[in-house]
Formats: sequence, C-alpha cells, structure tokens
Amino acid sequence: MVLPGGVDVHTRLQMPVLGMTPADDFCQGTKAALAGGTTTILDHVFPDTGVSLLSAYEQWRERADSTACCDYSLHVDITRWHESIKEELEALVKEKGVNSFLVFMAYKDRCQCSDSQMYEIFSIIRDLGALAQVHAENGDIVEEEQKRLLELGITGPEGHVLSHPEEVEAEAVYRAVTIAKQANCPLYITKVMSKGAADAIAQAKRRGVVVFGEPITASLGTDGSHYWSKNWAKAAAFVTSPPVNPDPTTADHLTCLLSSGDLQVTGSAHCTFTTAQKAVGKDNFTLIPEGTNGIEERMSVVWEKCVASGKMDENEFVAVTSTNAAKIFNFYPRKGRVAVGSDADLVIWNPKATRIISAKSHNLNVEYNIFEGVECRGAPAVVISQGRVVLEDGKMSVSPGAGRFIPRKTFPDFVYKRIKARNRLAEIHGVPRGLYDGPVHEVMVPAKPGSGAQARASCPGKISVPPVRNLHQSGFSLSGSQADDHIARRTAQKIMAPPGGRSNITSLS
Amino acid sequence: MVLPGGVDVHTRLQMPVLGMTPADDFCQGTKAALAGGTTTILDHVFPDTGVSLLSAYEQWRERADSTACCDYSLHVDITRWHESIKEELEALVKEKGVNSFLVFMAYKDRCQCSDSQMYEIFSIIRDLGALAQVHAENGDIVEEEQKRLLELGITGPEGHVLSHPEEVEAEAVYRAVTIAKQANCPLYITKVMSKGAADAIAQAKRRGVVVFGEPITASLGTDGSHYWSKNWAKAAAFVTSPPVNPDPTTADHLTCLLSSGDLQVTGSAHCTFTTAQKAVGKDNFTLIPEGTNGIEERMSVVWEKCVASGKMDENEFVAVTSTNAAKIFNFYPRKGRVAVGSDADLVIWNPKATRIISAKSHNLNVEYNIFEGVECRGAPAVVISQGRVVLEDGKMSVSPGAGRFIPRKTFPDFVYKRIKARNRLAEIHGVPRGLYDGPVHEVMVPAKPGSGAQARASCPGKISVPPVRNLHQSGFSLSGSQADDHIARRTAQKIMAPPGGRSNITSLS
Amino acid sequence: MVLPGGVDVHTRLQMPVLGMTPADDFCQGTKAALAGGTTTILDHVFPDTGVSLLSAYEQWRERADSTACCDYSLHVDITRWHESIKEELEALVKEKGVNSFLVFMAYKDRCQCSDSQMYEIFSIIRDLGALAQVHAENGDIVEEEQKRLLELGITGPEGHVLSHPEEVEAEAVYRAVTIAKQANCPLYITKVMSKGAADAIAQAKRRGVVVFGEPITASLGTDGSHYWSKNWAKAAAFVTSPPVNPDPTTADHLTCLLSSGDLQVTGSAHCTFTTAQKAVGKDNFTLIPEGTNGIEERMSVVWEKCVASGKMDENEFVAVTSTNAAKIFNFYPRKGRVAVGSDADLVIWNPKATRIISAKSHNLNVEYNIFEGVECRGAPAVVISQGRVVLEDGKMSVSPGAGRFIPRKTFPDFVYKRIKARNRLAEIHGVPRGLYDGPVHEVMVPAKPGSGAQARASCPGKISVPPVRNLHQSGFSLSGSQADDHIARRTAQKIMAPPGGRSNITSLS
Amino acid sequence: MVLPGGVDVHTRLQMPVLGMTPADDFCQGTKAALAGGTTTILDHVFPDTGVSLLSAYEQWRERADSTACCDYSLHVDITRWHESIKEELEALVKEKGVNSFLVFMAYKDRCQCSDSQMYEIFSIIRDLGALAQVHAENGDIVEEEQKRLLELGITGPEGHVLSHPEEVEAEAVYRAVTIAKQANCPLYITKVMSKGAADAIAQAKRRGVVVFGEPITASLGTDGSHYWSKNWAKAAAFVTSPPVNPDPTTADHLTCLLSSGDLQVTGSAHCTFTTAQKAVGKDNFTLIPEGTNGIEERMSVVWEKCVASGKMDENEFVAVTSTNAAKIFNFYPRKGRVAVGSDADLVIWNPKATRIISAKSHNLNVEYNIFEGVECRGAPAVVISQGRVVLEDGKMSVSPGAGRFIPRKTFPDFVYKRIKARNRLAEIHGVPRGLYDGPVHEVMVPAKPGSGAQARASCPGKISVPPVRNLHQSGFSLSGSQADDHIARRTAQKIMAPPGGRSNITSLS
Repeated sequence: MVLPGGVDVHTRLQMPVLGMTPADDFCQGTKAALAGGTTTILDHVFPDTGVSLLSAYEQWRERADSTACCDYSLHVDITRWHESIKEELEALVKEKGVNSFLVFMAYKDRCQCSDSQMYEIFSIIRDLGALAQVHAENGDIVEEEQKRLLELGITGPEGHVLSHPEEVEAEAVYRAVTIAKQANCPLYITKVMSKGAADAIAQAKRRGVVVFGEPITASLGTDGSHYWSKNWAKAAAFVTSPPVNPDPTTADHLTCLLSSGDLQVTGSAHCTFTTAQKAVGKDNFTLIPEGTNGIEERMSVVWEKCVASGKMDENEFVAVTSTNAAKIFNFYPRKGRVAVGSDADLVIWNPKATRIISAKSHNLNVEYNIFEGVECRGAPAVVISQGRVVLEDGKMSVSPGAGRFIPRKTFPDFVYKRIKARNRLAEIHGVPRGLYDGPVHEVMVPAKPGSGAQARASCPGKISVPPVRNLHQSGFSLSGSQADDHIARRTAQKIMAPPGGRSNITSLS
Repeated sequence: MVLPGGVDVHTRLQMPVLGMTPADDFCQGTKAALAGGTTTILDHVFPDTGVSLLSAYEQWRERADSTACCDYSLHVDITRWHESIKEELEALVKEKGVNSFLVFMAYKDRCQCSDSQMYEIFSIIRDLGALAQVHAENGDIVEEEQKRLLELGITGPEGHVLSHPEEVEAEAVYRAVTIAKQANCPLYITKVMSKGAADAIAQAKRRGVVVFGEPITASLGTDGSHYWSKNWAKAAAFVTSPPVNPDPTTADHLTCLLSSGDLQVTGSAHCTFTTAQKAVGKDNFTLIPEGTNGIEERMSVVWEKCVASGKMDENEFVAVTSTNAAKIFNFYPRKGRVAVGSDADLVIWNPKATRIISAKSHNLNVEYNIFEGVECRGAPAVVISQGRVVLEDGKMSVSPGAGRFIPRKTFPDFVYKRIKARNRLAEIHGVPRGLYDGPVHEVMVPAKPGSGAQARASCPGKISVPPVRNLHQSGFSLSGSQADDHIARRTAQKIMAPPGGRSNITSLS
Repeated sequence: MVLPGGVDVHTRLQMPVLGMTPADDFCQGTKAALAGGTTTILDHVFPDTGVSLLSAYEQWRERADSTACCDYSLHVDITRWHESIKEELEALVKEKGVNSFLVFMAYKDRCQCSDSQMYEIFSIIRDLGALAQVHAENGDIVEEEQKRLLELGITGPEGHVLSHPEEVEAEAVYRAVTIAKQANCPLYITKVMSKGAADAIAQAKRRGVVVFGEPITASLGTDGSHYWSKNWAKAAAFVTSPPVNPDPTTADHLTCLLSSGDLQVTGSAHCTFTTAQKAVGKDNFTLIPEGTNGIEERMSVVWEKCVASGKMDENEFVAVTSTNAAKIFNFYPRKGRVAVGSDADLVIWNPKATRIISAKSHNLNVEYNIFEGVECRGAPAVVISQGRVVLEDGKMSVSPGAGRFIPRKTFPDFVYKRIKARNRLAEIHGVPRGLYDGPVHEVMVPAKPGSGAQARASCPGKISVPPVRNLHQSGFSLSGSQADDHIARRTAQKIMAPPGGRSNITSLS
Repeated sequence: MVLPGGVDVHTRLQMPVLGMTPADDFCQGTKAALAGGTTTILDHVFPDTGVSLLSAYEQWRERADSTACCDYSLHVDITRWHESIKEELEALVKEKGVNSFLVFMAYKDRCQCSDSQMYEIFSIIRDLGALAQVHAENGDIVEEEQKRLLELGITGPEGHVLSHPEEVEAEAVYRAVTIAKQANCPLYITKVMSKGAADAIAQAKRRGVVVFGEPITASLGTDGSHYWSKNWAKAAAFVTSPPVNPDPTTADHLTCLLSSGDLQVTGSAHCTFTTAQKAVGKDNFTLIPEGTNGIEERMSVVWEKCVASGKMDENEFVAVTSTNAAKIFNFYPRKGRVAVGSDADLVIWNPKATRIISAKSHNLNVEYNIFEGVECRGAPAVVISQGRVVLEDGKMSVSPGAGRFIPRKTFPDFVYKRIKARNRLAEIHGVPRGLYDGPVHEVMVPAKPGSGAQARASCPGKISVPPVRNLHQSGFSLSGSQADDHIARRTAQKIMAPPGGRSNITSLS
C-alpha cells in the first residue's frame, strides 16, 4: 500500500527551556520521523526573550537547514504582544513563507495573551490570510492551582496533571472559538488532549466556526494514569501541557472524532528532554521541562487506533496523517498526495506488521518512551524522502541537512473560501431612523486622565475619575470624594447634540 | 390561592450611571414591586468610583431605609480589585448581613475582573460562606465589537445587541463555572439572557458544579427584535447587558430550564432610565444607560409563561418566585414560605385574572414598558406586606420607609452543605515516592527583575531575562549553548536540592 | 442523624422464573431491607401466564401479608395486552390501592409491548391518574443479538451483556419518552443502568417531559466487568436486564445525575437466585434467571457514592432514598418524612460507620453478593419500623407478617399538576377555513377486508389488500386508464364531497 | 463557474397513491431537474400491492427509459417483509444495478417494518454490499395521533403536521441508527426534516455509526408555518412526511450541519400532486396525497442558503449537490466530477443571478410551488446533459427518452471500507472457563405451542401461554404451577448437564 509520506503538524525540536535544548534535535528528530513514515514536519519557532519573531525564524532556518533529514516548514509562536507585531507578521507572511502563528492562552506572566490581544492578533492574521493557532489552557487558573498544590506540599509530576484539570483546557477552547468567530479568523487548536476540548471544537464546527483540531500521538496512544507512577522519571516523562488525560476513555473518544471529521489532523508535539533535564523539576513539578515523544510513533499509533480498529478506512488515514495538513497549511498537492508533480515523499505501508514500541528500539535520544509496551499493527516498510529511499528492510539511511524548507502561501482555499464569503456578508447596516429629537438628559462626562480611552455609559456604573458636576439639572449627584470640582466644572459639557457620536465624547474636557 | 410574597433577587433602584439616578428609585420601585406581588427585593450596591464597599453599603442602607415600601436586602458589587478586599468582604459578612457579592466579567477598564482575580475573590467568598455572583459577558470581546461597529457607523441601539452576541455571554458563563469549580465556590449567574448561557449552566450543574442561574423578566417575557425598531426611544428602552436575545425561541427555552430545575430563581434586574436619560447615547449606543423594567411584571410573566403554559405547577411557581431565592440567600423560612413564624408577606393570587401590560397603567416612572402589549393570565388580587394590606381591589396603599433591611447569615445549608463536603474531600495527597537520586541537568534560573513572581520552567519557553550565574555552589553547570557564559557564571545557582520546592526558587540570584 | 426509613422503589421478591422462586422471598428480603435501613419496599406483581392482573395482585398480597417484615406496596406489571386491560387497571386503581403499572419494551414473544400498545396503555394510565413504568430495552434487537451470539458459540454470561448493548437501552428510553410525551402521561423508567439511558432521561426532562428515572444499587455501586469473570457462578450473579454496564465510569455519571435532580429515586431491583438456579443457564446465557441483590446495600451505597463523595448533602440523600419515592408514588408524608403524623419508620444513621460488603455477613440467602469487597462509609445504627426497634447494636429483631400493605391514591400532586395543566392546554383547534370547493380528483379506495380500519391516502402508496381486481397486474387503479372499469365502477365511489370526513371513506366499496 | 451536473438523490416521479399518478412524471420532472441544474436523478421504485420488487423495478425502467430527459438511477422500496426478500434483493443487486433499498418505519398496516425485520433486512443488505435507506418516523405514534386529531375534529392540513411531531421523526432516526450499528450496516436517512432528526444523525456519526443524512429542498428552503394557511390548497401543497417543520430556525440548523459534513447530500423528494388530487383529502388530512416539489429549485436553494450565506465554499457546494451522492451510491467518478472520462453532465453556474421562485415561471405541472416568493442568488446559466446543451439563454431543449439508466455496483468504497474493517473486528470470543460443575436447579420448561421458538429463562417471568402438555413433541415441558403436576413430573428433567447448550433445552421432556 503506497501512501503519501506523513506530515507531522507539530514538533518542537529546538524548543528552548531554561537554556536547555531538547534531547531530540532537528537531526535526531527528523531521523525518527522518517523511521515512522513521516517525511515532512512543521516545527514551531519559539522566540527566546528579547528575540524578535524574525530573528527567531532565522535561527530556526539556520539550524534546520543544516541538520534536518526531511523536509520541514515552520509555524511561528507569538510570545508577547507588542506594537510592531503587525509588521513582523506581515514580513513573515510575505517574505518568509510562514502562514501560521501560535498564541498562548497559558503561561501567565510569560507568553499568555489576553482576550483583547487575541482578538486583535486574530484580526491581523485574518487580513493576512494566515491561520491562527492556539495553545488552549486557561493560564490564570493553572497558575492558581499550581500555587495551591505546592502549598499543599504536592511537588511530584502528579501535581502537573492536578493543576491542569480538563475543564481548564475545554474552557480555553470554548473561549478561543468564541473570539475567532467574532474576528472571523480561521482557528487551529494545537494539542487536543481531552474529551472536553475535542467536544468544544466539534460543537463550534457545528455552529459554523472555521476551526481545526490537532490531537497528538500522546493523546491518541496512551493515558495520564502514569503521572501517579512511583517511578519519578517515568512520571516526569509524561509532563506536557495540556497534560495527557488520566481518563482512560479519552483516546477512544478522540479517535472517534478524528474519524468523523470533527478533528482533522494529527501531530506529535514531539519535544523531549532527558531524565536529567526533567529532573530540574524533581522537587517542584512546575520546573519540569514540558514535552513528550511521538514523532516516530504517530503513524503507527493512528493506524492501530483508527484503522485497525475499524473506525477509518485507508483514505481517511491518509487524510488525517498528511493530506488535511497539506491542505490546511497550504502545501497541497506538493505534499499529502501521491501524484505526478507532487514531491516524491512516499511510504510503503505494511498493514500487517506489528511491533511493540519500546525505548530499547526507538530512534530517539530520550530514555523513556511514553508508549513503552504499546503494540501497534501497521508500520512503514519503505520510506522515500525526496525520491531517495531512507528506510528499507528496517535499515535507515538519512542525510542530515537534506531537508528543505517548504514555504507556504497565504489564503489556503481549504480554509479561506468560507472566511472570505463571511467577510463579504459581514457588512452590517444600521437601522435607518429619523433623528431622535426629544429631550436629552444633561450629563457630565469626566475626562479620563491622560488616556486616549473613551468614556462610555454602557456600563453599569459611572464613568471613572473624576466625576464632575452639573449645576443646571436636578437628579444629579456628586460622589462626595472629589476635590477638584472647579476643574470638572470647566470641562463638563452638555452633550445634548454631540456632533458625531462616540468619538467626540473623548474631546470633552 | 395564597402564596408567599414574591422575592425579586435582582434590582438596581439606585444604580448610578454617568451621574444619573434611575427613573424608578427605591420608593417607586418597591411600590411597583408590591403592585406585582413582590414583597421582598434584593438590590445591588454599586460603589461609585473611589467609594469603599462599606461606604457604598451605608449609602444604600440610608436611602432604602428612608424610602423603601417593602422589605429589602442587599448584594454588594465588587467593582475593583484591591488589596484590602478581603477585609472589606469580611466586615460586610460579619457585621452587615451581606452574604452575596457580584463580580463583573465585562465593562473593561472599569469594573472587569481578570480570571486570577475571580479565582482569588471566589476563594475568599467560599471561606466566608457567602455566594459569588457573576455578571457573565466577555468584556474584552464586547469592547472590540463596540469599536468595530462604531467604526462601521452603527450608532443606534441595534449596535448594542450586535456588540453583545450570545456567544460572548455563553463563553463567560462557561469560564465562570470553570473557575468556581476549581475554587469550590458556589456560583450564581445573574441575568441569564440566552439559550447558550442557560445551557452552559445546566451542563455545569450536571457535572457537579454548585451553580444557580437567574433569568429575568425581560428574558422570559419578551425578545430582542425590538432593538431594530425604527422608534429610537423604544429600541433604547431595551438596552441592557447581556441584551435581550433576538432569538424568539429563547424565552421558551429558558422557561423549560426554569421548570426542570436547571435554573432556580427569577429576578427583574429592574433598572430604568427615562427616554431623556437614555438619549444621552442617542448618537452612540455605548452611551445609552443600561437597564430595563420588570419589577412589577415578574410574577405575572412567570405565571403566564410557566404555569398557564403547563410547564410548572403552582408549587414550582412559588419555588422560582420566592422559596428558592430565600433558601439560596439564606432568609428562609422568614421569607419564601407561608407558615407560622414566617413574615406576613402574602399574596392572594388570582390565576384567572388576565391583563395586558402597558406603560399607560404601570406603576413606574419610565415612559416605555418593554412588555407593552403582552397579555398575562395570573395576577395578585391582594398583597400583604409585613401584615398590612398594600394592594386590594386594585388599590395600592404603601408607606415609603416601611421596608426593613433583611440581614442574612453565611453558609446557607441549601448551598453550602455540598461545598463543605467537597472541601473535606479536597484533601489531596501526593504520590509517595523515593527521592529521585539520578543526575540532574544544571540550569541557570534567571532572576525576575524586581518582582516577587516566581521563576518556573513549566512553560514552553525559557524563563525571562537575564540568565544568571552563581559561582558559590558546586555541581552546577551551564547549558552549552550559552554565548555569555562569563556573565551567567556569576549569578547562577544549583537547584539540585532546593529545600522547599518552588518558593525557594525566588531566592535565586 | 435521624432520617426517615428508606423506601426501596423496586423489588421482585416473588418473581416467578421458569417456575422457580427467588432465593430471597418476602420474609428474607424485607429482613435484609430493614438491616440496611429500608423500611418500605415496592414490589412488582408479575402475573404468571394465564393469570389475570387482579389474581396476581391477590397472590402477592397473600404472600406478603403473611411474611413481610416491613411495610410494602405494589406495582403491577402488564405482561400482555388484552381487550379488558382498561377494566383491570381501573379495578386495581380504584379498589386495590395500586397507582403504578409497568410495561415491558423487551422480552419479545413474552411480555413485550408494541409502541401502539404503549400509547394506548399510557392513555389509560393517564386518565386513571396513575404512573406508567417502563422496562426500557429494545427487545427486538436483544433477541437478534442473542441469536447471533449463540450462533457464534458464545454461551457464557458475557453473552448476556454483549447482547444487551448500552444503545439498546438508551434507544428504548428515547422511544418511551417520545410516546409518553405524546400521550401526556407521566413516565417512570425503572433500572437506569447506563449513561446513555440516563442522558436520554435528563434531556427529555429538559424538553418538558414529566419523567422519572430509577438507578439501582447495582448501577450505582459496581460495574459490569465481572461478566467476563472466569468464575461462572460469579459472572452469572451479575446477570440482570438491562445489564450492569461494563463502562467503569457509569456509576460516577449516574450519581452526578442523581445529585443534580435529573434522576430522582433509587431502588434495588432486588431479585436473587441461588447459583444452582442461575445454573439453569449454564450452557446458554439466555436461560440464566435474571436479577441481582441490592435491597440491603442500597442506602449505604448511595451514601458512599453520593454523600461521602461530596456530591449531595444529607437532605438530598433523604430525597433520593425515601422522600421523592413517597411523593411520586403518593404515600407522602406517611412515609419519607420525619414528622408528627407520619409513620414511625426511622433510621438513626451513622455517617462514620464503615463496612465492607460481603456475602459472609449479608442477610441474604444468595451465595454471591455482587458488591463483594465494596467499602462503604455510612450505615444504619438503629432502625425503627412501625415504631418498633428492629435493628440495634447490630442485632436484628424482625416479625414476619408485621409488614402492612400501603395503598396508594391516584393523581399524586407531585406528578400530576403539570400533567393536568398540559391536558387543559392540549385543546387543539383546527384552522377555520372556508370549504374547499375546487375540483377533486376521483379515486377508488379499496375496502380493507373485514376490518374497521380506515383507508388512508397519507402514505406513500396505495392502500392495502385486497386491491380490488386487477386483471393485468399493473397498478390496478382507476385513474381513468383502467380496462376493467365496469368492475371498479361497482365498488368505487367518487369522493367529491364526502359527507363526513374520514369515517365515510370506510363505507366505500 | 463550471460544476458537475447536480445529482438529486430522491425523487418520486411515478409514485402511485390511491391509484393516482404524480402531477410531474418522469418527462416533466426530469425537464424541471435540468432547468435547475440537475442532470441525474435517483427515483424510488415503490411496488404497488401484490407487485414484486423485480416487477416494480421493470415497470419503472420501462416508463423512465421511454420518457426521462436526463440520466437516472433507481432505489427500490421494500414495502413488505416476505420470506423471499433475500432472493429478490440479491437479484436486484446482482442483475439490475440497484444498490440501495428503502424501508419504512411509518405507514402502519401498509409498509411499516418492525425492528426485527429492519435488523434482518439490514443484515441482508450489508452482506450484499448495498445501502439501507430508511424513512424515519414512528408509524405507531403517528397513527395514534391521527386518530386523536380526527376525533377532535381536526381535518385540515394542520392535522398533518400536528400528527407528525418532530419527536416522532427524531425517535425513529435514533432507533434506526441503533439497529444499523448493531447490524453493522451502512444507513442512509431520507428526508431529514427537523433539528431533532439531524442532531440524532450527527451524534450517531460521532459515535462511529456509518450513517448519511439527506435534507431536502423543502426542509432547507421553507418552513411549515404554511400548514396553518387559510388557503386550503396552499396548505395542502406542503403535506409530506415527515412534514416541513414549523420551527422557522430549522433550515438554518440543517444548513449548518450540511456545511459541517454531518449531513452529506441533498435531494428534493419531489412528488407532486395537483390541487384536485390533493383535494381527495379535503375533509380528512390523512387522505391528502403526500409530497412536495423541489426538483427544480434544489441547486439554487442550496446555493442561496449555504454558499451565499457564507457557510460553504464552492467545493462543498459541489460535494453536497453531486459528488457525495455519486460516491455514496457508487457512480463516481462517472457523475459528480468534472474530468476526462466522466459523463459530460455539466453546469455553468452563475453565482450572481438572482431569481424569485414562483409557480408562474416554474417548469412543473403542479399549481402551487411551496417556495413561492423565495429569492435565490445563484442559478444555472447553461446546462449540459450527456454532452448536449439542454439549457441556454433561459431556453430549454430536452429530449424525452434521452435519459439513460445508470446501474450501480455494490460495496462502494466510500461507504464500505469502514464496514468491512468492523466486520473483521466483529469476531467475538467467549470467555474460556472451566465447566460449571456445581448443582443445577431443576426447572420445567414449557413448550411454546406450535412454534419453533425456543424457551428462555432470561426474561422476568415465566414462559408463555398456555403452558401446555405435549406428549408428542420435544421442546416442551410444564410450568410448576399446573394442576397436573403428576404429568409435569413425568416430563420435567433435570438439566444438570444439557449436552449442547441452548438448543437442547427444547428437547427437554
């Protein structure tokens, strides 16, 4: 059975954590990818503190170009909001072949985005024709729970999963789709780890939101009961966010939704650290570097859970392991298809092969494999990357640096046709009414000191400081605490007939 | 048919907006309440800028004690987060008879709470045995939508409903229940206006969250199509937040959930402004003072929609119009029950009376009644407040100032028995493990400049600037990828065996 | 803590299966009930073949009056449809104190009801003011699955659960609520065993159906993994229908819904057979007599799962173990309440007691206890039945024959107020239209041979047998094109202006 | 914009009702189809009473071959269960090019299938590699409601919709998917008319059922408020089953699910009768011949509601109007695709055209068009059927008899790959256990008189009526409650060690 080579939509082979580099870097990671039948990866550029998005992008290119064994492309993570973000995104989109950007709803005080920032970033992304990716967890709650657990003396890896309850993931997904719908921006949820999150995506899809969900090898192939392992190193190997869910029925649910089309792609979120690296958090689970393996196991795990179990047919397998990814991220049909003109990235798949995953035999540097002992039917017999055989008869033959960067264009049809139609529809018209010419109550609108923010009365409450005074009308009262009445008096105006709506309010005072 | 007098769980008879006072104050509002069969109201104290919660409470007491015609109690709104909030809440709870506090998830830059603040306030409230009320709308999104609509030139009342889409309400409810569940705090959602919000409450209840929902007269008795009325004044009369939903099937859905017990109480959120007052926003919908009428119509609307329609029996009517409120807010059986020892607040209800609601005949000062033309079966024939007949033969006889303040105790059984049981259960134990004694990667943990915030490695990313070095401890080494080793070396420390988990990390550097 | 004595809403202490009597009869069963804190049971009268409902009722009365140790009341099962069923039900309701009747949607060819029969029985029950109980499983599918499994050679108890998949239970619930809603009859689902069934009830409740659900000790306290036990006798002890669900998260889900009020009462469905009796089906799972224990364990299991776990408070515990049952079946406040005037059936409950359930210590005749090894917090310290102490210091002192029959009246307020209101509303009016006076196509309506059934054209197709004379076999009708007009003409009529609607159609031919 | 010609998956152009032929026959109907951009139809063969499936098929072929203007294929309706059904289906599948069969869950006493029959038919269909179509309504309930309404004096078309409430449709869908899942047969629900039905399909899909849903022009383009029209003829024009839903938000919901892939194809269920024909039921709504128009309007209605509204892009439009149908029914890529080798059935679509549907301008014989006044953007500019231009510049040029029959093969990959995988998995193994060798209770198993059915003890109760004595038959024994125990005693046997499981039970006595 000949398939297009797999596309892993999510890797982090150079993710910097506390100055540490992942155990499996571009060289080792892409080798493992090829070993598992994956011929293209999409890695996340994560700008270190003080590094611009563009510089980080260049760092990634440099490292990957020189060491990657298979083709790759890049998502860029937006780790902080700043004024020039629009320009940076525009440059990446127009000059660098990036069309997907990730924002974080978690990691408070570091890279967490507020809802307003998300709305604005989504609006920029939509205008650029790119895709908004979201790491969906409520960082505020996570932080509070981490505090509480550490105070209770919980320091081990079980504290990680206890401080990231499923609801926190589902809540963030729900919020992200709400914002994306308002901004009419296509949304992509990375790392779908729980039933709650997956259901939130499925329901949003049904309400018409253009949203995609990415379950990963870990959420499809194992469960989070291991956080309670007495073996600290093993438990720590599972630490990732959102965590692998402890509910053992999660994987079955996710594979159902993947099969029904409610979820569309699969990634690995591969980001591994050695036990010694994980041990940085041996006395405090919040310090354990996050990430699990999965780049090598992804294709086999999906086959085992979805095809061998009868939930999918082979075509659907190809869709969720490569084609959909290529369409969403806009490098179809170069990848994700077996056809003349497409890249010669091919896998000869043996549905009858069975193997048991183990750290003893994997192509990774990391000591623990979170799928240890999992038996999978289905494995690649031959893997061809860029026309060269890289795996055959169980032997690998890879060339570090052979991997090419795959630039991607904007406005993928698969994603944007509906977005555009809605943009056209989004023309809203006000109700044509005669002018209201009745009496208008006089109010004093106070100045907001030193701000461009606008005064508004739409809230249940008075507009902020300083409340000002109006001598001409009864029914008006002062908050007693003001000292500067004389100033207020000068700035107050009747707004009986404001000449141009809201904006002129700001000119008051 | 003799019923306990109605309890209106939500009024705002002294709500200050832009220095304006509502058209129906304590005197007029409570008179209208009595006319409709309601003998107790719970008004919201909204502290004006710079006014403390306690001072605001006293202002409300003073005004209400001198003018209210029926008994009343008070919720206190938390309009901003500050350090001494715990002490203020404690004083209100222990000395002033308040056991319910409202936080706002909307009204950005004025009274909007962040998720972290909500978590902390909920924790305080839970420890005090009070009830957390939430105004559930995502203020960030609302503000963005308001901006967008004004930019599009939409200035009329239809802009209000367009900038408050249903999803924004449902999202906030979903988030609030997530936070409340984590904090194990009883939650109460005010003003349930949409199917989405109601469903989110019902589902949370099913997952075991202690949550209550309050639909109001407006959401049960009319719909939001009127925002598009060509009559500006009429459209403006409907402006409230969350808005009255334009989906005409909303009321039917809410009454179903009220009948099945998924929603438990009914309020009016009565807060009225004259047309002249509303006209402050005649050129900018965000300046229209918010609020609708409903204090007088509530009992009849609920009877018409729930009992006359066969969804409820009479006992359930009493439950959702008075008894549940009295149990939740802890003044049962003083109110909400017809029994020896209870207050003599009674209504003789005539299920056969029919009347058509109209501004011509209502007991309000406001010009527009949002239920104009609605026909209701069921009306009070006689209303008795504190043992005195205040309505009989259609004639009212009220005494301003007769209304007494009803103080309320904490830890209502109806709410807190389950919370307490869960608190007991919330004891979490870590996994007993032998100490990890393998190798630990050396990292540099940077100081967070000038902050008490703690360094953490649990995020996908490095901890912020600058990575530092510590020469005084052995066993520590740098990750090889640093360029500025000479600097790092000076301040970095081992964290091989931090004595007490996370907190000591902050002592680094 | 003093509670009203428990009410077990479902027992089968004299259920005849293949001529066998249950291991725990009225004497032993009620003794075990009292040992567990239950002071009233509702047993099901199951008329044996050829026995009328009334005679069966008398058999039950006779047996129970002479041997029951605690008070009891009776449901009557309708095991077959017959013309005089209305009269029988009426007699039971008016003269015998029965107000609840069970129909079976399963057990094909024995007692299974068709949808039409259910509709008609529901209509009778509604008019009588009684309650319709339903054993909800799709018997057609079960039978097909049993056949298939036996053909595959599956003969052990695992075949029982495999032939009763969860969907089959949920489907039947869905159908039952649909029929009950149409017939406006209150519905009561016995033995809620799965998430699917419980969810279907909860959703129906939300759509306004008057429906109650009864989870049982087995579905709340254990799971169906034991059907795969290598110990045949143990596996067989779990055989009951619907089966105990193999999904281990079922009990948690059911207790959530019981806590949120979506399910209202708890029973035991106690019906036990000795291993030797169960062994009748040792080579064919369809011959294993069905039923599990639970009469003694019910109160403790509910306490452990709901109260000790923090899902309910004590008041809610009383509601689901006695009060709701008494209200639904209309013997409140005689039972289900601690008050002057109520029966002196009391339990002093010790929330701190813990015990491990075991066949070694239970008060039953049966060898296997399906809750073997389950640890429960909460147990009765003292049990008082009819004012006499029957359990104290772990010692029982019961009097067989002391149990009294509790007759029950019709139209329980708790159930029927809403039904009545809807009945009033159910007045439907046709659209007043002028008479249609345009042309009408001529058709021949064939006679339905020897039946009062009416011909109808509302189907996609012609009306049934025998199609009056068709000489050529080609679509016999006379729309002008027929050859045998002379024959048709004799029987056909123009129905240009049928004098009285539908009924006159039958007079055709 | 060039599209593949539309495929209308459901027409009834020769449906016999009470001897009447539809107003729009194959000639007129296919002409209208072409006018609307549809170049292939799938008509339903409905065997008249006493006509075999094969004969009916031949009748349809004959009529269509001689008059159809566009290509067509045929579904065959199974109107009654009979022993030789398997052979008939096999012949149709193997020799006649039919791979889809419809069963009715409604139309009691005429063509309604029982659940057991459905299970068996589904099993046959699955083995043949065909598709099971279902008309989903609970016929038992419908009949009861019809009776009730006629008794109440409701005789007009509003009685039709009142007797077919939405729940009745949703219930049947729920049941059909349950049966199909058990039988592992692909399921196809015709005429999805309500939210409830559509949701049931979507949920089943998510649980892994291979199910397809077919909304029709009527459910997508109008609503059922017209049943209450004062114009009888207009109201009658809407009579179809399931009825067009009165909930005005239905169409929006269905288009959402069609866009999200939960529903996959669109048909018209075109089956029209003139007002004179409809008037057969002028005094009794159950006699109104059922069916609405839609064959001509389908493509434009779907464009307007789905594409112009921004819910779909053009590719998805093609999918739901032709490609999916071709894949499901297995004539892809002959139809449903624009490619070399595919049939030259093409449409040049003008997305900017707008037109208002009216009976004045439609290509139908029927007087009323249920979409009267609906405005649609999007219309065919040129239609090409079999390479010939049939519509251009608004002028039609069709050739009756030019339409060819499209035979279809079995086991469509699009449908059957998953079914096959599940079949492989369906191998169930019993639990290997040692033989039970304990004591076995003696029972008497009564004979089921005159039947080969087997006695079973798995029910709550004894086996059937009348327990009789049969000396001449094996498979028989007496129940213990008999008077003639002496006989029973003779015939009863211990079944300590029945030699071969279930079947041998019948050999007792």
